[in-house]
Amino acid sequence: MSHDVVNSVSNNLFTINNLWMMIATALVFIMHLGFATLEVGLTQSKNTVNILFKNSVIPAIGIITYSIIGFDLMYPGSDFAGKIFGFSGFGIGTNAMGLTAKYNQGYTYWTDFLFQGMFAATAATIVSGAVAERIKLSTFLVFSAIFVAIAYPITGMWKWGGGFLDTMGFYDFAGSTLVHSVGGWAALMGVIFLGPRLGKYKKNRINAIPGHSMPLAVIGVFLLWLGWFGFNGGSVLSADPAEVSLVLVTTSLAASAGAIGAMLTSWVILKTPDITMLLNGILAGLVGITAGADLMNPVEAIMIGFISGIIVVGSVLFFDKIKLDDPVGALSVHLVVGIFGTLAVGIFGEKAGINQLWIQFKGVLAVGVFISIFSSALWFILKKSMGLRVTEEEELDGLDIGEHGMEAYPDFEKAV
Amino acid sequence: MSHDVVNSVSNNLFTINNLWMMIATALVFIMHLGFATLEVGLTQSKNTVNILFKNSVIPAIGIITYSIIGFDLMYPGSDFAGKIFGFSGFGIGTNAMGLTAKYNQGYTYWTDFLFQGMFAATAATIVSGAVAERIKLSTFLVFSAIFVAIAYPITGMWKWGGGFLDTMGFYDFAGSTLVHSVGGWAALMGVIFLGPRLGKYKKNRINAIPGHSMPLAVIGVFLLWLGWFGFNGGSVLSADPAEVSLVLVTTSLAASAGAIGAMLTSWVILKTPDITMLLNGILAGLVGITAGADLMNPVEAIMIGFISGIIVVGSVLFFDKIKLDDPVGALSVHLVVGIFGTLAVGIFGEKAGINQLWIQFKGVLAVGVFISIFSSALWFILKKSMGLRVTEEEELDGLDIGEHGMEAYPDFEKAV
Amino acid sequence: MSHDVVNSVSNNLFTINNLWMMIATALVFIMHLGFATLEVGLTQSKNTVNILFKNSVIPAIGIITYSIIGFDLMYPGSDFAGKIFGFSGFGIGTNAMGLTAKYNQGYTYWTDFLFQGMFAATAATIVSGAVAERIKLSTFLVFSAIFVAIAYPITGMWKWGGGFLDTMGFYDFAGSTLVHSVGGWAALMGVIFLGPRLGKYKKNRINAIPGHSMPLAVIGVFLLWLGWFGFNGGSVLSADPAEVSLVLVTTSLAASAGAIGAMLTSWVILKTPDITMLLNGILAGLVGITAGADLMNPVEAIMIGFISGIIVVGSVLFFDKIKLDDPVGALSVHLVVGIFGTLAVGIFGEKAGINQLWIQFKGVLAVGVFISIFSSALWFILKKSMGLRVTEEEELDGLDIGEHGMEAYPDFEKAV
Repeated sequence: MSHDVVNSVSNNLFTINNLWMMIATALVFIMHLGFATLEVGLTQSKNTVNILFKNSVIPAIGIITYSIIGFDLMYPGSDFAGKIFGFSGFGIGTNAMGLTAKYNQGYTYWTDFLFQGMFAATAATIVSGAVAERIKLSTFLVFSAIFVAIAYPITGMWKWGGGFLDTMGFYDFAGSTLVHSVGGWAALMGVIFLGPRLGKYKKNRINAIPGHSMPLAVIGVFLLWLGWFGFNGGSVLSADPAEVSLVLVTTSLAASAGAIGAMLTSWVILKTPDITMLLNGILAGLVGITAGADLMNPVEAIMIGFISGIIVVGSVLFFDKIKLDDPVGALSVHLVVGIFGTLAVGIFGEKAGINQLWIQFKGVLAVGVFISIFSSALWFILKKSMGLRVTEEEELDGLDIGEHGMEAYPDFEKAV
Repeated sequence: MSHDVVNSVSNNLFTINNLWMMIATALVFIMHLGFATLEVGLTQSKNTVNILFKNSVIPAIGIITYSIIGFDLMYPGSDFAGKIFGFSGFGIGTNAMGLTAKYNQGYTYWTDFLFQGMFAATAATIVSGAVAERIKLSTFLVFSAIFVAIAYPITGMWKWGGGFLDTMGFYDFAGSTLVHSVGGWAALMGVIFLGPRLGKYKKNRINAIPGHSMPLAVIGVFLLWLGWFGFNGGSVLSADPAEVSLVLVTTSLAASAGAIGAMLTSWVILKTPDITMLLNGILAGLVGITAGADLMNPVEAIMIGFISGIIVVGSVLFFDKIKLDDPVGALSVHLVVGIFGTLAVGIFGEKAGINQLWIQFKGVLAVGVFISIFSSALWFILKKSMGLRVTEEEELDGLDIGEHGMEAYPDFEKAV
Repeated sequence: MSHDVVNSVSNNLFTINNLWMMIATALVFIMHLGFATLEVGLTQSKNTVNILFKNSVIPAIGIITYSIIGFDLMYPGSDFAGKIFGFSGFGIGTNAMGLTAKYNQGYTYWTDFLFQGMFAATAATIVSGAVAERIKLSTFLVFSAIFVAIAYPITGMWKWGGGFLDTMGFYDFAGSTLVHSVGGWAALMGVIFLGPRLGKYKKNRINAIPGHSMPLAVIGVFLLWLGWFGFNGGSVLSADPAEVSLVLVTTSLAASAGAIGAMLTSWVILKTPDITMLLNGILAGLVGITAGADLMNPVEAIMIGFISGIIVVGSVLFFDKIKLDDPVGALSVHLVVGIFGTLAVGIFGEKAGINQLWIQFKGVLAVGVFISIFSSALWFILKKSMGLRVTEEEELDGLDIGEHGMEAYPDFEKAV
């Protein structure tokens, strides 16, 4: 009997761990709604249907392609696992072992797939914000499908699938680099290939194009913060009380400090408490802590968040200065702060040290080079084949009419 | 001591299972917000207060009536359990046993009641969408109260309470028939009794009456998808890692495939990527997989979802052609795809086979006949007594002014 | 081995309990979004950015200050624990014990901090609604920071930290008094110090200033109800199946009964089904049950909720009559019903009795006196130093332009 009891105890732990991972999956899922409402809130009402369409179909495309190829590329197991490229055959499947603690102490094969699939789709959503209000829908969908299916899993494998970044000691707890900067580099290339929105830098001035709904933007940021409970908390890969609760504390403290850092910075620089900066500050805190959320104590988490909040304000102003038009600040939040957060692992917390910092830098560089080349090539091919940008007329009228033949808010009078 | 240990281990499992069921309850609860925002998003701004009012009070009425009578009708236990009608007395109560694993390996009596009560209220919410923009508030509230209190629990008992559908081998995992088509049949009768909105089919044409806020519609669909993690995942009735995680995977794959199926179908047929079709495709995938979410492998789940997405587009166009005016597509999503999903248990997955298909068909029929008769009788009585429809003037001015004396968005200028 | 097994069983229970507490924390977190959307929905569009700004930065300020001083004031442990004031040093820290079941059977030190920190921040958010549309941003932020850092933890300690209210047998399960009326008293003083919005009581009439978005208000109420699953359910401080599931049932029944009580009352008194009353009825039911959610049976929960729903309607009308201008009804929901809910512990349920009622009354009084004096003093000092109220011109133009230099909805034409 004693043996059975031990088994039951271990089964119970497996059930608990798996339960947390499923809940974390649901939390990461709701981030897609957060990205959707944030992006529409910070853009013009004439492009709302288009943005909502993209953000509603991306999780669907992401989950499907991840089930066909992405998961197999990212976690090749022992089937065909190179250090740079791995592959374990098409399609997800399972066997009895994948559903028990023998597969993994923390969760079943199904939970593994779904948690990782939800993550994967966020990478494409990050791109969406930066290229909004001017990209062709069909082109974007093709880009997203290929990017989530191929590019994201390859760099993901480098670390989380046991590839060369893992071997060399690179650390990225929940993806400041592997998720956020991956999305960020692709977004940067997209912004360069597309060019700015019409009128944005007309007459050599930076012309603000204000977002059309601050409540939607705020809903987005709160849902993203909520989702981060699962994004970072789930990255512990078990329900371990000490580890998960520490991660939730560092994550929340960093988000809070990011808010305060960005609020103070923008209040000083811009002379006004800018709500979009506050919101980007929260997100910056979250992205900044993501690489080392399990390595920091509260004071370090607050410092990382606070610095991230300062950086994001400067970065938003900088990108506008060099005329890279990013409607929602995705480059600043996900790329710039994603890089900072990854480097912060070498500066703060348990792994701090010049060697680690150098490794972190090399990891950032490797991922940046690969994703930049991959996404540039893809943007280039799509530009030559399908075309990247809607017509000038369509952009002026709005993509909702041009691409979808409808309006997001037909009942209300537009301000001129 | 050994005996105590075994007990503790089993208590722990009970605690885990109960925890998951409580979380699933919370997830199903949030579906009510999803239904509310979806329905207002897809209808006109002049009826927004009215729809929000309905959708806010329905969960309240549903939970209260379910505590008084519904739960006792649906799960009669051994008290008075016929195969067609059962009853175990008024009001919920409990005893010490109901709070331990002796009642049920998966959850306490309280959790059982609340999870099922949240389900029950969704059935009335489904009706709400189809009859929106013209039904009298008081009439709808009386209909909902009686429907949730009496009709839903009776057909629910036929399967989940151990009634004749259960005996004959009918399978409906989480309610493609018992929840969705139950709401759908009542909605169909309501649409027939009410007639279309003024102007909808004027001059023998189908005149589109566009919804007033696409962001609200998208928020609704994402919250419903999120809620389905609990709706289907909780229907495992335990936190069993293999079963729950499989169900979450099939549910998410079907939703994704539904999105893609509906997107492609509407793009081809309507020549434009229609966001309302995309959203209904996601919901169709979810409804379609609900009856057999625990029986399908990933490929089967994708197929069911994809077909559901195609069906829902055709169905929406069909109902408009036969002049049944359903502002949000509830008949297509919940009734038509609910039926398809139920039949799909006989076509795909572990139970596939002509015998099962025949049983599924009989179950669909039995529920359809009963609910159609019950709801027709109820709509008829209410028409003769309270009246079903608001006055023509009220409908033109909007139900917000007519029924509630206020506007949903008083600060904004209306487009003419 | 047997010893190890016992250990493992107890570790598993700890992991389960901690998991529930972390999820409850996430649920309480999302209440901040609920407060934000409720408050903007019930106020004018010209003040939306300002309100969103406040509600986005309050959780950040609350969590940070709670980590620096609040948690140490509220739970002094044995370090310096008077019955009226306690303190255990600045800043949160931990040791190995704080991360195991030795610290607490239910959760780790980190979870403890974060759950309580999320609670703390809600107290300031309650104030926000009552003083909306006329308070200076900077003043409000300073008030909130000091209030959450000092005042809330002191009265919280009186009961939950083992202070004199606890010693004398005062009962407040999840904070009808310690959270809701604490916020409510501070709000009352704020409303008195600030005075009504311009035009609200002009010409000796009560002039309705309608909220600008009913969908946002409804989103807020549903998110608050969802969050209450964690607010009350988490206050069990473990995942105990019987206790938590009872609490979720009483909470949901009270919310439902509150909706119905407020709907019927307002329909009778105001001759119209008022949605803002319905929404406040739901919140009233939730606040009313909070003090005794673990002591009531279903019938008692329904009675408390129903009475709360009646009270809130009367209270909203009363405050308008005495010209205390509270844009969102926060005084009625959180202060008046918070007091009723606390007293209800002496009237209904397991602890009912005249002695308990007297103790409850004394607790309400003690907290009311302290918070009223503290917040009056703070409002007074801030009025003399920073100023409380924006200029008349700014109030008329809206705080969005005045304080933030931007609009919440620049794309839409304003109604005049």
